[in-house]
Order: sequence, then structure tokens, then C-alpha cells
Amino acid sequence: MDAMTRIEQSLGVAVACAEAPGAPPGLGAAIKHAVFPGGARVRPRLCLAVARACGEEDPEVTDAAAAAIELLHCASLVHDDLPCFDDATTRRGKPSVHCAFGERLAVLTGDALIVMSFETLGRAGQRAPARLPQLLVTISRSVGMPTGIVAGQAWECESGFSLAEYQRAKTGALFTAATMAGAVSAGSDPSPWRGLGDCLGEAYQVADDIRDVCGDAQEIGKPTGRDEALGRPSAVGQVGLAGAVARLERLVAGALDAIPACAGAPELRKLVLAEADRLRPRRLVRRVA
Amino acid sequence: MDAMTRIEQSLGVAVACAEAPGAPPGLGAAIKHAVFPGGARVRPRLCLAVARACGEEDPEVTDAAAAAIELLHCASLVHDDLPCFDDATTRRGKPSVHCAFGERLAVLTGDALIVMSFETLGRAGQRAPARLPQLLVTISRSVGMPTGIVAGQAWECESGFSLAEYQRAKTGALFTAATMAGAVSAGSDPSPWRGLGDCLGEAYQVADDIRDVCGDAQEIGKPTGRDEALGRPSAVGQVGLAGAVARLERLVAGALDAIPACAGAPELRKLVLAEADRLRPRRLVRRVA
Repeated sequence: MDAMTRIEQSLGVAVACAEAPGAPPGLGAAIKHAVFPGGARVRPRLCLAVARACGEEDPEVTDAAAAAIELLHCASLVHDDLPCFDDATTRRGKPSVHCAFGERLAVLTGDALIVMSFETLGRAGQRAPARLPQLLVTISRSVGMPTGIVAGQAWECESGFSLAEYQRAKTGALFTAATMAGAVSAGSDPSPWRGLGDCLGEAYQVADDIRDVCGDAQEIGKPTGRDEALGRPSAVGQVGLAGAVARLERLVAGALDAIPACAGAPELRKLVLAEADRLRPRRLVRRVA
Repeated sequence: MDAMTRIEQSLGVAVACAEAPGAPPGLGAAIKHAVFPGGARVRPRLCLAVARACGEEDPEVTDAAAAAIELLHCASLVHDDLPCFDDATTRRGKPSVHCAFGERLAVLTGDALIVMSFETLGRAGQRAPARLPQLLVTISRSVGMPTGIVAGQAWECESGFSLAEYQRAKTGALFTAATMAGAVSAGSDPSPWRGLGDCLGEAYQVADDIRDVCGDAQEIGKPTGRDEALGRPSAVGQVGLAGAVARLERLVAGALDAIPACAGAPELRKLVLAEADRLRPRRLVRRVA
């Protein structure tokens, strides 16, 4: 089964409880809206690719880790879009959750997705209890305090902070969790996989900053120009557009170098190169070409 | 060590990451504000009491389960108090988190507390991996979909629903998780402990409804009269004050009956009776006396 099919299937299983008998229908629909159809699913694809490179022998555990990571990503998008943060009206080319279902259900959708993420790990842990504690700690650290997604988002509420730390927490941490959790799912040491996740996470954030300036709202499925409008720190604001593009290319090269020597390395290189292609906004590619 | 000391200590360990090096200070302070000083800590006390009654042999696992449950309770209070829900200005006799720290940090505080709860379980699972999956699933079900806290809160956004189902999800589920997780922490079968949690959870919700009508805001540390003001379903609204008081007494009796025969039964009976005393508002006791 190809990676995207595995990911969509495991997400379907993870969120089935949202529409189980006895569930409040509004929240169930909002949760489905937040998860399907998805974006590029890059974090779970990365998790699966690393697990395969590590000689994964129990795909169900990897699938659960990948789904858990994607659900946490979806939760962070729903809460980031809330009126008190970005007040975004669109996401993935359709109305944001709070626009479609109201602010109350958007708060609860984020909460429910976080809980479902860990419940999914718990269910998989019944098959592989020895791997569960490390999976749980690896993934929860990447979203919690002091340096996970919520910490990154909270830096936006502070007056002075380091752009690098902010971006590492807000975006990078979950990429690092994706590579490391892939290794843990396969019963391997996760530490050699940290560098790949770190580089890709930073690349993704720099690419997001670039697209916010010169991307096309329809192409990326959300409004552009938000960093400047919200006074949010960004790589483009810090080093200019050309500087940010150069940094993106250095990070992609760094990600390729960080792939540990293993049988699955060629497949991982292909994934990184394809992502790099996807991350460069078409308008910029046309301009540069 | 007595139960309250164990609980405060394990909560202290669980939230230490909120003020670890590299943490955004505003969110760290908001998290501390949400957790300390606490309320009666009834859910973790119940978890500890059941674990002791089941012959607990590894207190660190029970402490983690108890802390995880209390953190989820604190998270639900912070999000319930948000302007889009109850818009409550006080909680536990001090400003609510969104009043003291702003709405953005209140959203993130709830998110961070949910994550910390599961991270705490993950760390404890490194000591007792065989018990972790069941603990994780038991606790996550009580807060997630289709019948946990977020589901209960979401029923408030629906036009028609059953009061019993709503209250069971919004309040009862976490009490049931507290008794069952206590048993799981001690390596026992959790099913005989479900009834005690169910009865106490319902009793607690009915008592909350009664106190909302005839309690004293200073005594209970939050505003009264909110159910009627927000058009929220309540036992008093459904069967009147006298009917609700009679229901509370039936539920306390039911809880006493539901305690399984075990060496720790007398201690659990004492806990239930003390809670029942605390749950009856003083004004009502004076009026009835």
C-alpha cells in the first residue's frame, strides 16, 4: 500500500470516534472538516519514510505515530486560525474551522484532535507496549512546553524573542518528531534522525515565510501577506526575500546531507527533493527561471 | 506521604517544563496560574484512593495518572472560561486565565495542559510500559470524542440533547477515568470501579448545578447563576431545587454502594462522605437544618 493511502486510512481510523454513536454531530463534522481533505501530509509521509528506512516490521505502529503527528498538526492549524490569533478565514482552500462552525467548536476541535492523537498512540501501544513510552514522550515534547508548537505560538505573545527559537518550536519541532518517531516506531535509535527533521522543519518554515510574501493565495490555500499584517517575525522580514531563498536552498542541501547512510536513503532523498520543489512558490520559480 | 502532598508534588513535576529554560515566560506563568493553587483535587484524590485500595505497589505510576487527570481537568476549566464559552472572570477565587493573561495565552494554556497530561503518562510509562496503553486509552476516552469532556462541552453548541448524556460526558467521564485509572495504575481490573466513578461524577455535576443556584460566589470561587444566564441545561432547571437535592443524596448513597468489597473500602467510604459534605452548599445546609 502506498504511503498516502496508509496515511489517509489511519487518519480515518483515528477520527472515526468523532462520528461514533453518541457523539455531538456539530463537533464531529468540524473535526472531519479540519482533517479531510488534507494538505501535503508531509509530516506523516516523513515518519513513514524513516520507519521504512529503519526496516519497519509493524506498520500499524508507524501508521499510528504518523496519524498522531498529523492530528497534532491539524489541531495547531485550527487554533492558529482562531480570531484571537491569525483570524484566518480560509485554510487548505476552504473556510477555516471557526468560519465554518463557529469559534466554540473550533476551540473544541483543536482540543479533541490533541486528545485523539494520544488516544491513537495508546491503541497502537496495545500492540507494542515497549515502544509506546518513547513514542509518547518524543511526540508530546514536540507540541508542548518548553520548546514545542504551543511554546512557539506563545512566543508570538512576547515582546522580544529569537526568530530561530520561535520557528524551531512553532514548526521545526513537529518535523523532528516525525523523523524520530518514525525510527522509534521501527524499534531503532531515533537520535541519528534528528538532523533530517531539524533541517526540513526549518526549510518548511522559511518556505512558508517566502510564500506569505510572494505566493498565490489560491495556490497555497490560505491568505498571503499575513506575517507583515500581523507584525509576525519572518525570515523574509529578517534577511529579505533573496536571503530567505538562499537560506531555503542551504537547508534543503543540509537535509540531504543529514540522511543517515541506510538502505532507504535513495527513497528519502527523492522525498526531500520533491518537497523542496513543492515548497518553492511557482511565481518565484517563474521569476527566477 | 499523605494524598494531597503526593498530588501537589506530582503536579509540580508535571508542569516544571512550563518554566524550563527556553520556555516563553508568559505561557509558563499562565500554566502555573491555571494549576496552582488548586481546588479540592477530588479527581486525583479519588485515583490515589482507588489505587491504594487495589494494593498499589508503584506509587509513581499512580501519581502520574492522578496528575494527568487533574491537568486535563484544569485544561477544561481554562477553555470553558473563555469568552466564547462561559466568559467567566473568576475561577477558584482569582481571575480566570483569560482575564489575567489574555485570550491567546488562555487557549494555549489549555492546549499545553492537555499535552503535559499525556507527556506525564509517557514518562511514567517508562517505568511501567505494560500498564501505559490501558491508562492512556482510559484517560484519553474520558476527555475526547464521542463521550468525553470535549463532547460534553460540544453538546452546549447543539439545540437538542439529553441532560444525562451531556452531564455524563462533561463531568462524569473524568470521574470514571479517575477510579478506573487508579485500578489500572495498581495493575488491577478497572471494570469493578466504573460504578463508583459514574455515581460520584453525576453527584458532582448535580451538586454544581445546585451551587450555581443557591451557592455563594465567594465560597465556591466562581460566579453563580451562570446556568440560567447562559441558558445551560441543569438538574435544578429540570427537576427543581428540592428534586436536585434528593437526586444528589441518592447518588451519594449509590456511590457508597458501588465501592467494591476490598481492604480499602472503609477509607473510600470516608472519602465519599467527606466529599458529599463538601458538595452540599453551606447556605442550603443551614436552610435545611
